[in-house]
Parts: sequence; C-alpha cells; structure tokens
Amino acid sequence: ENTFDLTAHPHTRLNILTGEWVLVSPHRSKRPWQGKVESPSLVQRPAYVEDCYLCPGNTRADGTKNPAYTGPIAFTNDFSALLADTPQGGENEDGLLVARSQKGICRVICFSPRHDLTLPEMELPDIRKVVDLWHTELESLAAVPFIKYIQIFENKGEIMGCSNPHPHGQIWASEDVPMEIEKETRQQRNYYQQHGRSLLSAYLEKELKQEERIIAQNEHFVALVPFWAVWPYEAMIISRRHVQHLLQFTPAERDGLAAILKELTTRYDNLFETSFPYSAGMHQMPFNDGESHPEWHWHMHFYPPLLRSATVKKFMVGYEMLAHPQRDITPEYAAGRLRDLPVVHYKKAGV
Amino acid sequence: ENTFDLTAHPHTRLNILTGEWVLVSPHRSKRPWQGKVESPSLVQRPAYVEDCYLCPGNTRADGTKNPAYTGPIAFTNDFSALLADTPQGGENEDGLLVARSQKGICRVICFSPRHDLTLPEMELPDIRKVVDLWHTELESLAAVPFIKYIQIFENKGEIMGCSNPHPHGQIWASEDVPMEIEKETRQQRNYYQQHGRSLLSAYLEKELKQEERIIAQNEHFVALVPFWAVWPYEAMIISRRHVQHLLQFTPAERDGLAAILKELTTRYDNLFETSFPYSAGMHQMPFNDGESHPEWHWHMHFYPPLLRSATVKKFMVGYEMLAHPQRDITPEYAAGRLRDLPVVHYKKAGV
Ligand SMILES: O=P(O)(O)O[C@H]1O[C@H](CO)[C@@H](O)[C@H](O)[C@H]1O
Ligand SMILES: O=P(O)(O)O[C@H]1O[C@H](CO)[C@@H](O)[C@H](O)[C@H]1O
Repeated sequence: ENTFDLTAHPHTRLNILTGEWVLVSPHRSKRPWQGKVESPSLVQRPAYVEDCYLCPGNTRADGTKNPAYTGPIAFTNDFSALLADTPQGGENEDGLLVARSQKGICRVICFSPRHDLTLPEMELPDIRKVVDLWHTELESLAAVPFIKYIQIFENKGEIMGCSNPHPHGQIWASEDVPMEIEKETRQQRNYYQQHGRSLLSAYLEKELKQEERIIAQNEHFVALVPFWAVWPYEAMIISRRHVQHLLQFTPAERDGLAAILKELTTRYDNLFETSFPYSAGMHQMPFNDGESHPEWHWHMHFYPPLLRSATVKKFMVGYEMLAHPQRDITPEYAAGRLRDLPVVHYKKAGV
Repeated sequence: ENTFDLTAHPHTRLNILTGEWVLVSPHRSKRPWQGKVESPSLVQRPAYVEDCYLCPGNTRADGTKNPAYTGPIAFTNDFSALLADTPQGGENEDGLLVARSQKGICRVICFSPRHDLTLPEMELPDIRKVVDLWHTELESLAAVPFIKYIQIFENKGEIMGCSNPHPHGQIWASEDVPMEIEKETRQQRNYYQQHGRSLLSAYLEKELKQEERIIAQNEHFVALVPFWAVWPYEAMIISRRHVQHLLQFTPAERDGLAAILKELTTRYDNLFETSFPYSAGMHQMPFNDGESHPEWHWHMHFYPPLLRSATVKKFMVGYEMLAHPQRDITPEYAAGRLRDLPVVHYKKAGV
C-alpha cells in the first residue's frame, strides 16, 4: 500500500486544545506482553468500612470526626498540597534557579456515604447531587479573591494513585493558573479571535458530522474520544452550549451532565467488566484575573490507563516522558468499542 | 513563620530546560497512604531464561533467532512504533483534525547476555561497552537523511512499563523532532543567544557552588537532582564539557559516562535496597536539520517513580495530568538522601 492511511500507518496528531502532538502507531497493538500485570480488585467492597478515613462517622487522619453524612459532602483536605496562608516570596538566581510561593485551597468531595458506590453505580439523582455540590464549591472558591483557577477532578482506582478507595473527588484551587489551562487558554483565544466562535464548538460540529469518534450524547452534552487522544480510551465530555464555566449551566444542563457522566462511566466499567480506573477533571475559565474569557468552552477530560484488559495498562514512560506521548490503538477504534457496549452496568445486567 | 521558606512552604519552580513549572508541597510528605502498594520482585532472576525473547540463542516473538551474543547487541524492534517505509501523507480539516505521517526506526539494545544483570550490577568495562554501542547506533542512525532526532532511552523495571525483564534499552529515531526536544532547543537557544554560553554550563556552575543538589561527580560528569525535579528522586547527568551530542565524547569521557552511570544507578538501588525502577534517556541535538545547534548541551534525565519505599510510588495523576506536576519531598532532601548512600551495591556489600 502506497497511500498514507490513518488506520494503518504511524503518524502524529495535533491536540488543538494544547498545541501538542501525539504519536499514533496503529499497527503496533499486536506486540507481546511479558511485562507488568495488574491485580484488579475483584472483591465487592462493603458499604461501610471501619478504618476508612472517609466513611460517615469515622475519624480522619488528622483527628476530625466525619459527620453521619447521607449525601455528598465536601471538606478541606487534611493533607492539602496548597495552603491559604503561605507567605508570599520567591527566589530567582540569574533566571537559573527560579521559584515562587503558591497559595491555594484543597478540598475533598465524598461522592456518597457508601464506600462501595462509584459514579456509574450511583443513581442519577445522586449523581446530580454531586454536580450540585461541585457548583456550590466552585461558587465559594471563586469568591476567594486570590484564587485564579479551580481544578475539580477525580482519581478513580488504586492504579490511578487514589490514596483511599472510598469514592471521592478533589478540588485544588490555586493562586496561579496551571500550565495545562494556560495552554488551553492560548489555543482557544487564538481560535476565538480568528473565527469569532469557540474552538470546541467548531470541533464538536466536525465530530458530530463524522460520527466515528462519538461515544454517547444527550440534549446538552457529547462524549467522544478526541482525535488527539493520548490514553487508549481517553474521552472528553463537551457541552453543546458554549459556556465558560460550570456555574452557567441551567438545571436541565446539570441533569444532562449527571446523565452523560453516568453513561460514559458505565460504558467504561462494561468495557473490561471491571471498575474502570481513570483520572478525570473539568476544564473551565480562570477566575479573578480581570478577564471574561469569551474564548473558553467548558469541557471535561477522562484519562484512563487500561489498554488491553482489566490487568494490562498503557505505560506513559520512556519515549513518552523524554520525547512525546505515543499510543497504539486508534481513537476511532477506541470510540467504536465504547459505543458498541450496553448502557446498563454489567453488575446490574440480568442473568 | 512569616517569611517564605523553600523547605517549608508550597511553591512552584521553573524548569529552565522546558519553560514549564512544577508545584512543590514540602509539608505534605506525612499524609497517610491507604492506596496502592507495589509488589517488588524480590526473587533473584536467573542468568538465562528459556522463554525470554531477549536471551542469547532464543527465538523472538517474530521468529528471529538471537545470536549467542556475549556483549551488548542492538537490533531493530520487532514491534517498532515507527517504521522506515511509512508513506508520506496527512490530513487537515480546517485546522481542527490535523495529522501527518511519521517515519522512523526503532532499535532495541540488550545491555548484556545476562538476564539478571542491570546496569548498576554490571562491571565498569561492560557498561563502557554499552556506551560504545550507543555511539555506534547513534552514528549509523544519524547517517539516515530523513532522521531528525534519535531518542536513546531505557525503561527499567516492570512498574516502568518494561515489557520484558531482560535488561535492555531502546532507541526511537524519528522524522520529526519530538516536543520535549523542541522545548529544550527553544530554551537553550534563547539563553545561548543572550549569554554566549550554554544554559546548562551556567546552571551547572551554580549547582556546583551550592552543592545541596549534587549527588555524585567525576572528572567529566555531574549527577544532580535538578532544582525543578518532578519525580521524587529525579536526576540529571550533565557533561562538564559543553558538547552537542554523544559522538563528541572522548574515550576518557566515555569512561567517565560509564562510571557516573554505575554510581548513580547503584545509589538508586541502595536507596530502598531494591532494583530501582526508572525511565532514563539522553537528550542531545537534532540531526540532519541543517543546523549546528551550538546551544545544545548533552545531558541525561532519570525519571524514577518510587517515593517512600520499594512499594509506594508517586502517581502523576489527577492534578498532574489536568493542571501541572506536583511533588512532595524537596529536590534538596532527595539529593541529600542519595548523596549519603554507599557507592557499593547493597547486594555486594559485606555481611
Ligand atoms: O517498547 P516496550 O518496552 O514494549 O514498551 C514500553 O516502552 C514504550 C516506549 O517508552 C512505551 O510506549 C510502552 O508503553 C511501554 O510499555
Ligand atoms: O490526594 P491524594 O489522593 O492523596 O493523592 C493522589 O492525587 C494527587 C493529586 O492528583 C496526586 O498528587 C498524588 O500523587 C495521588 O496519589
């Protein structure tokens, strides 16, 4: 074959949100594996665990006692990476050793009192309560004048470094705008200035026409594998409406977000019939920087590590760390797999 | 305490080689861990393994028979991510879906016929032979006109995604210059144009004066924890002499490189008395792009994941993927730990 073919030949793809590239090697998925095999936790977790720091009524690592909570709750992280009272300062030795202090606030959000329920296994109204709590948290953090960016995220599964198995997410709010957001702001601003519409609206339109990378959609949101996905089953949720941040969503959109979250994470669990690990988080505009950021278009990234099965993951190592990211299966193949799965959670599927 | 202190307060540090930032949270190393615990391979590996694709005389996955090799050998990767005969082409849909074909060559280097010997456990003259083989490989790959960059690297240990435990490294040579190299070229060029000397010469001078981040040194090379290290025990080897690539090293420098490699990796193994996993690789100038790259200064990065012990690693997830990298222990603490260790490998230390 002498003509270049995206489904067969090694190539690079551009991430339009960051301006970065990924190397795709579609022919390579057949290589043998004599490497690490993960042990998935097959045991069903109990609904309550006595020594879990996050279960209702338990005492946390710092001595605080959790309330007997019945819905999602948020509290300040006992081991916050960022603190609100860090004194200002820094160091700069001829531009070679450069550091500056960083203030911030870190919060933990328990999705549910139940130790055994992850997002896909929760009922829709309970997921909607998580969305509402994100809203409340975002609102109060955005009201802190020194906070410029609020990162809402979840590390799910122990292979994603989750330090406690009780289903929970986190929020790290910082004084500076993090690098990934700087990149996405730059790319979105360039596009907005040139075309007068958001980059992701234009991108979404193309994807909805081509269909091959779409995983799921409802009235308000679309879940897809981005053209430039790095992780094997990476996905994005994009709001159909061009809004800058979560606080702008209508009640109907909040329902829609809960629904697409449940659908995407259920498809993930069904893919390898395991509680599918990932890091996920939403990206939205910076706050309190004196700008209105019309270019920003709310979206959410899912970065799941599993590649071939519940036990073999993709390692972002070596070439990926030193040169740039690489993937084997194509985004189109990944989207097809996810799209073809049932929307009922495998644990609930009839016998 | 009201004055900012790098050893106590959260802050960000600038990576002068890439222009990127890392968040440092020195106060955070005491957080409890209810997360993933790795199982280190405690069993001593045999010198020869019958079903290993890389042991001498064995048959590889693609049917090729390995020679009965006695020193390091190199061959083309049976499952290369990049191929030399990829047809040229690409796609560009309004700047939104952008891809281009990518040619390249992937090589595997077995460090030794012995299945059980990693770099720190090999004798100095045998490590020198690996350095010489890197040299030969680099020379022949740089002679291929379409190759612009040659990434020499090693993934060590199964938690670093090494797909075969036989000690080996890889070389991925590509038609385009990878992103990490583009960043380092830009930063080094800016500095060189402004100051007429290499960025890393100036940086090394500062580090040698301050001493606190130095791990080891010999006549030709220095090993240190960079001021902007992301991984807990990340390190760099920098050549004292400002050269652009490996082919410029004198025989004495090649000996020096073998020696500092053995010393750094031995200290690594001694830290937690385990075969210390990492991804490592050298960075040097691009080839065949019509430029002489006087700004480039050869160096080698080591990215090891272990954090607290042989079984608890740092996870670059969540905030790190969505915002920017974060570390707990300071680079100064990490360097001190590594510097204070014996230079004799723990397996060889007397009873
Ligand atoms: O080439 P290997 O050893 O099969 O594979 C390993 O190294 C590659 C290059 O760093 C990575 O892309 C793979 O994810 C990793 O498992
Ligand atoms: O905050 P946790 O759950 O203790 O820790 C986890 O998430 C953090 C934020 O993504 C990471 O920095 C840690 O490496 C990871 O283990």
